[in-house]
Amino acid sequence: MQKQKFELLILGSSSAAPTTQRNPSAQLLNIAERFFLIDCGEATQIQLRKYKAKFQKIDHIFISHLHGDHFFGLPGFLSSMHLLGRKQELNIYGPAELREIIEKINSISDTRLNYPIVWHTTSNKELSLLFEDDKVEVRSFPLKHRIFCTGFLFSEKPLPRKIDKFKLDKFNVSPANIHKLRNGDDIVNDDGKKIKNKDLTLDPEASRSFAYCSDTIYDEEVVKFIKGVDLLYHESTFLNDKEKRAKETFHSTAEQAAKIAKLAKVKCLLMGHYSARYGDTEQFVTEGSTHFKNILLASEGKKFQI
Amino acid sequence: MQKQKFELLILGSSSAAPTTQRNPSAQLLNIAERFFLIDCGEATQIQLRKYKAKFQKIDHIFISHLHGDHFFGLPGFLSSMHLLGRKQELNIYGPAELREIIEKINSISDTRLNYPIVWHTTSNKELSLLFEDDKVEVRSFPLKHRIFCTGFLFSEKPLPRKIDKFKLDKFNVSPANIHKLRNGDDIVNDDGKKIKNKDLTLDPEASRSFAYCSDTIYDEEVVKFIKGVDLLYHESTFLNDKEKRAKETFHSTAEQAAKIAKLAKVKCLLMGHYSARYGDTEQFVTEGSTHFKNILLASEGKKFQI
Repeated sequence: MQKQKFELLILGSSSAAPTTQRNPSAQLLNIAERFFLIDCGEATQIQLRKYKAKFQKIDHIFISHLHGDHFFGLPGFLSSMHLLGRKQELNIYGPAELREIIEKINSISDTRLNYPIVWHTTSNKELSLLFEDDKVEVRSFPLKHRIFCTGFLFSEKPLPRKIDKFKLDKFNVSPANIHKLRNGDDIVNDDGKKIKNKDLTLDPEASRSFAYCSDTIYDEEVVKFIKGVDLLYHESTFLNDKEKRAKETFHSTAEQAAKIAKLAKVKCLLMGHYSARYGDTEQFVTEGSTHFKNILLASEGKKFQI
Repeated sequence: MQKQKFELLILGSSSAAPTTQRNPSAQLLNIAERFFLIDCGEATQIQLRKYKAKFQKIDHIFISHLHGDHFFGLPGFLSSMHLLGRKQELNIYGPAELREIIEKINSISDTRLNYPIVWHTTSNKELSLLFEDDKVEVRSFPLKHRIFCTGFLFSEKPLPRKIDKFKLDKFNVSPANIHKLRNGDDIVNDDGKKIKNKDLTLDPEASRSFAYCSDTIYDEEVVKFIKGVDLLYHESTFLNDKEKRAKETFHSTAEQAAKIAKLAKVKCLLMGHYSARYGDTEQFVTEGSTHFKNILLASEGKKFQI
């Protein structure tokens, strides 16, 4: 069986002020054809078009916090979904005031959406389950920023057991039984013979996970929520030259992001949310590498397979 | 003397839903180094950077109406001006609720601007003077759209009279007297001789003007406000195939925009605010040309010298 998709597309990698090269925060995550939009900075809808992502496949939008560079693209995106004929329900997860502001903007701009929005209020007290279906779970967890902010944890549910095709040929197994085997059940085959699951299957691939931490000050409290994830996106707004400024503004440096990645024993760290003062981003890897080796850099249009 | 600048830069030419090629409404007008931003659709700040316009030179922003494609870029632009260190006053002209919504967004997104905004409420009852200095006047006038909407009229003040250099050599005229001559005054020259203004000067160039009409249904009431302007921007959302839809949505067709241009005897018509359904825009000229010959097409990054 082909491995199910787990792919992250970067739509914006800048911090507050966009540059000619970088847009404000937004990422599109595809897990098994569920499309999750994470943050929605200004011009996210333009980025989605540019990278040929299908608007109407997005049924879930997660907003970490209400600084403009993380949600100013939402009103326009909601309006365009409407203009393009959306009818199906859209789920939006975010701070309580998000609903209030979007409804106010829609009212004042005379926008009446032809599809229902289901609002889910996030909490920054603890790890909370926001969404779950047969393949994916999404949780929020608290981040420490100037205003209310949460991170998000996206995890595959345990994958089906793998059928051992070499052994399968020896038994007479119906398609219905294949399904039971994948679920981990023992079966009785078409010849009436009882077969133990472990005789015909192999352990599944490990479930994969992605954690999104933006925006946040350096905070070891976050480690317990993101332990061992395959990919950690952790904001790295500044380099060491601005460590003081990072603390004052409740942001992190590249080195601090790498320290968190090391403490959480994640497989891979993805940096982004770069301050506009930095043109070249290679120095983020250099400074992070003193603590953690496996570092990737977010940039517009880049796709990461998890 | 060099002619003073009167230049229009198109930042967005699409109607409600942006496309990969077109951004929502925004134009930057430079008259004698006064920079006027007209409407501010999503990603206007990104367009301004792309076309190397200087943010901090913009001291006046005019918002025609509160449909999202005309103002969703304003919160982010105001925030970026702040982040880039703006201190000087910014004037915003628009419908009454604009201030309310921007203040609500700034409050909820914890944005505290380091510069003062002076709010000017527009009226859609009559022609109203919004701004005036020694070189420029700006007025608003009513447009007929689904919601409150105004157009804007930008006019040069009468230009100084031109010195007739061939005649100047015969008289003994001080620099102070040159200034008086340009203003239309008679002078007494350094030899004590009285000289009539008309003996030394020529009529000035005609003052130029630009009118912005977006969004509006076909409405001949607007003609009196825009009579004889050098350049008329009149929305042309649709072609003739969608004339019914234009009426229903209080928009105009290319042909209707051309009819208004003809009735108002303007020098040149600029079309824009194209519906996303039209890829190629040449048909707008074709259909408009049955009524008016001098038609230009707005597109992103295009500059028009008036």
